[in-house]
Amino acid sequence: MVVRRLEEIIARFGGELRGNGKLTVNSLATLGAATHEQLSFLANPQYCAKLGTTRAAAVILAAEMADHCPVAVIVTPQPYLYFARVSQWLAEMSPPIPGIHPSSVVESVVPASSSIGPQVWVGPGVEMEENVVIGAQCRIGAGSCIGADSYLYPGVTVYADCHIGRRAIIHSGAVIGADGFGFAQEATGAWVKIAQTGRVMIGDDVEIGANTTIDRGALEDTVIEDGVKLDNQIQVGHNVRIGAHTAMAGCVGIAGSAKIGAGCTVGGGAIILGHLTLADGVHVSSGTLVAKSITTPGSYTGTVPFMAHADWLKNFSRLRHLDAMADKIRALEKRLAELEKNT
Amino acid sequence: MVVRRLEEIIARFGGELRGNGKLTVNSLATLGAATHEQLSFLANPQYCAKLGTTRAAAVILAAEMADHCPVAVIVTPQPYLYFARVSQWLAEMSPPIPGIHPSSVVESVVPASSSIGPQVWVGPGVEMEENVVIGAQCRIGAGSCIGADSYLYPGVTVYADCHIGRRAIIHSGAVIGADGFGFAQEATGAWVKIAQTGRVMIGDDVEIGANTTIDRGALEDTVIEDGVKLDNQIQVGHNVRIGAHTAMAGCVGIAGSAKIGAGCTVGGGAIILGHLTLADGVHVSSGTLVAKSITTPGSYTGTVPFMAHADWLKNFSRLRHLDAMADKIRALEKRLAELEKNT
Amino acid sequence: MVVRRLEEIIARFGGELRGNGKLTVNSLATLGAATHEQLSFLANPQYCAKLGTTRAAAVILAAEMADHCPVAVIVTPQPYLYFARVSQWLAEMSPPIPGIHPSSVVESVVPASSSIGPQVWVGPGVEMEENVVIGAQCRIGAGSCIGADSYLYPGVTVYADCHIGRRAIIHSGAVIGADGFGFAQEATGAWVKIAQTGRVMIGDDVEIGANTTIDRGALEDTVIEDGVKLDNQIQVGHNVRIGAHTAMAGCVGIAGSAKIGAGCTVGGGAIILGHLTLADGVHVSSGTLVAKSITTPGSYTGTVPFMAHADWLKNFSRLRHLDAMADKIRALEKRLAELEKNT
Repeated sequence: MVVRRLEEIIARFGGELRGNGKLTVNSLATLGAATHEQLSFLANPQYCAKLGTTRAAAVILAAEMADHCPVAVIVTPQPYLYFARVSQWLAEMSPPIPGIHPSSVVESVVPASSSIGPQVWVGPGVEMEENVVIGAQCRIGAGSCIGADSYLYPGVTVYADCHIGRRAIIHSGAVIGADGFGFAQEATGAWVKIAQTGRVMIGDDVEIGANTTIDRGALEDTVIEDGVKLDNQIQVGHNVRIGAHTAMAGCVGIAGSAKIGAGCTVGGGAIILGHLTLADGVHVSSGTLVAKSITTPGSYTGTVPFMAHADWLKNFSRLRHLDAMADKIRALEKRLAELEKNT
Repeated sequence: MVVRRLEEIIARFGGELRGNGKLTVNSLATLGAATHEQLSFLANPQYCAKLGTTRAAAVILAAEMADHCPVAVIVTPQPYLYFARVSQWLAEMSPPIPGIHPSSVVESVVPASSSIGPQVWVGPGVEMEENVVIGAQCRIGAGSCIGADSYLYPGVTVYADCHIGRRAIIHSGAVIGADGFGFAQEATGAWVKIAQTGRVMIGDDVEIGANTTIDRGALEDTVIEDGVKLDNQIQVGHNVRIGAHTAMAGCVGIAGSAKIGAGCTVGGGAIILGHLTLADGVHVSSGTLVAKSITTPGSYTGTVPFMAHADWLKNFSRLRHLDAMADKIRALEKRLAELEKNT
Repeated sequence: MVVRRLEEIIARFGGELRGNGKLTVNSLATLGAATHEQLSFLANPQYCAKLGTTRAAAVILAAEMADHCPVAVIVTPQPYLYFARVSQWLAEMSPPIPGIHPSSVVESVVPASSSIGPQVWVGPGVEMEENVVIGAQCRIGAGSCIGADSYLYPGVTVYADCHIGRRAIIHSGAVIGADGFGFAQEATGAWVKIAQTGRVMIGDDVEIGANTTIDRGALEDTVIEDGVKLDNQIQVGHNVRIGAHTAMAGCVGIAGSAKIGAGCTVGGGAIILGHLTLADGVHVSSGTLVAKSITTPGSYTGTVPFMAHADWLKNFSRLRHLDAMADKIRALEKRLAELEKNT
């Protein structure tokens, strides 16, 4: 665990210190849990009440909250962003020692700065830039490229010919470049596989969650642009393009050839159908099925409220008769107008 | 395959035997499929009709059904539970031979009772209790703990510093302790990663399905209490807590910081949003999106009925106009009241 | 990359060539992207406009389009199917060299035609037919069988005693044969595991996507029939049966003991509940929850339209009061009828 003086933090990340710069912290914690060796933060107003009793060494917060804090403060206009940056610095571990574990099978020439963990397989023709870390039991297919400073946790699979940009973080069980789901159907009903000859092209600063799958393109490539963040268990179909800095929560499914804009967010468990286009700045709520293209930035939702099961039985059975209900309303309107005319 | 006499089963699990205790069985089977070397059971009344013609050696059932059975019976008030217990005993395999496969890379000292399969990686500082089985190609991160009698199937990933309790069963492809999905956003739209420094703490008697992912906490820990059962492909976000004996079916997604009570059940494909609290004894139906906390035990549902696609087109287009329909009803009520007053 | 003359393609796959059979192509591409060394195709009428300007060497198309094409054509009644077949042929790679990588642990006798990649584990008693390819770090449980010409990508898990048919393609991270989710509950709320003693039986020509999981049966087997195609991240519960040539898109969940007919399609993210039966030729739309058996072939849907979040708030809050709305309509009808009688 790294120990840092508050003045070192200020020197690196800016902000205004009110308090003793010689105080040291070794990690971050919430206002309620922090001890006197920890740094805390106040980013969400709902936690204001916890400020007065915090035991943290210091708190990162906005100017208007500074007077309410019983301990040292680091004042910054964006406490959450500041907290994020400090969190990385305090958590920084010494990088793995470079070298190839003797149990690994590496069929390409990799830089001396690479750290290849135990039981890794690196196929032939792989291009690895400097300072790449490959965790235990990753499998890196022939002809793929991995950008500088990328970190693959144990058990990641990269199929042949896929490109991963710089500073990627890829979690265990992720599969990059498996075949897309493409078949033509014979008259008999049997499916004939369409060879998936495209690649997966991943930009810089992308994070990919555990057990997320990104399929290679059919003819052209699947493209993940710079700064995209994908949570766990996301499925990205072939020929999808995801724009820069778009973030998706767990369990999202993106069907083939969907084009998602930049700066979008997609909530957990949402499904985006194939061949659609989503504009930049579209926010899809959790659990929403996107069945049409969206051309205007904004938030979009399509989910149903849950309720006690008995209420649901009563209410949702009506959904089968919604069209009939609308017809009844129209009939009522007509009859009423008739009556009103005659009265 | 183990062969057991009925009297041995009674001696071990209780119940009342009506029939010849020297009869032997080697496995369990349904009433319809069982042969004279198999034991069957009747737990669900819908299978009563199959009792009369079963060829099983014996049937586990409740007292009121005993007279209808043509073969030996084991009478117990809870036939399904009895069946479950016997099923484990009959299926019991000789435990793997202790020892470390020479192809494995084990950087910690593990008990002599451990069975470490081929091509496993165990990092430094791992604490393993007695009689742990680690299947082929598991990867066990530095500083993690694995409780006694736990069984990890091939290809499980445990990240650094996670704790797994006793008698855990973890299936292939499960990932315990990957980073939670936490980022702060810069004005440019770029995301800054928040270091995920919490752990995953798993109680005793937990089963985790294939390709299920449980993220480590951001600052505090993700906690899975005793006796929790998670099916395949479940995603558990950072800082989630799941109460004792809660069971979740496949494809469930739990967003960060949700607190799920004890004794809950969650149906397949349900999504529980972040920062919610579910009371003990809450049952969420399959496919339901839980978007608010639930404070009262009971069953909750929020799904739509499916129908023939043509009917769906007619009915569900109305959902876009539900608010307008309600307005029309209110207008009709007003006009009608006016008319009624004047008549 | 293979280079083929158009006349070779015609000789192998039929169709009528209009143009110079000596022209060569090395791969396939879309009409817009194809260069003069590539073959293209026109299967979807929406791309007709691109035909006139294509730079492809030749285009696979239907007779009625042939006159509009500025380059050589291969005329066939089913251009998409023809394209699929040619795509496989052009993408064909030289098969991996047979043999067992020295880093693998193979505890069974396998045919000399097998290609076992690096760091694979093959348990005892495994039966492998001819020309099987096992990618890096697969784990093949004891007593399982793998049919001729099957191809397992790196990191596939097959549990003990499962059967995989001929010409299977299984992608990375797939888990075949993990325990189904079966428990009996004690009065205390604790769950007692039911031993899962069935197997997974997979027919011929089945493709299984990355990170898809197929559970073994509880007492009987889980069965995947010939020609089934499963996309990524699908969960198939214990004792499910999926009929021949059924295809499922990503993220589908099938609960235990569901029986899906032949020639069905299931859209991405759909959930099929347990113990249901779906007839042959049923098509389930993406995101649909199937909560009842379907006995008639056809398309079925149960999803809600998404809308701008503000509109959704207005409309979908009404769902909680659908039953009340129906009551109000009924009351209005009664009052109106009363009025009409009196007027």
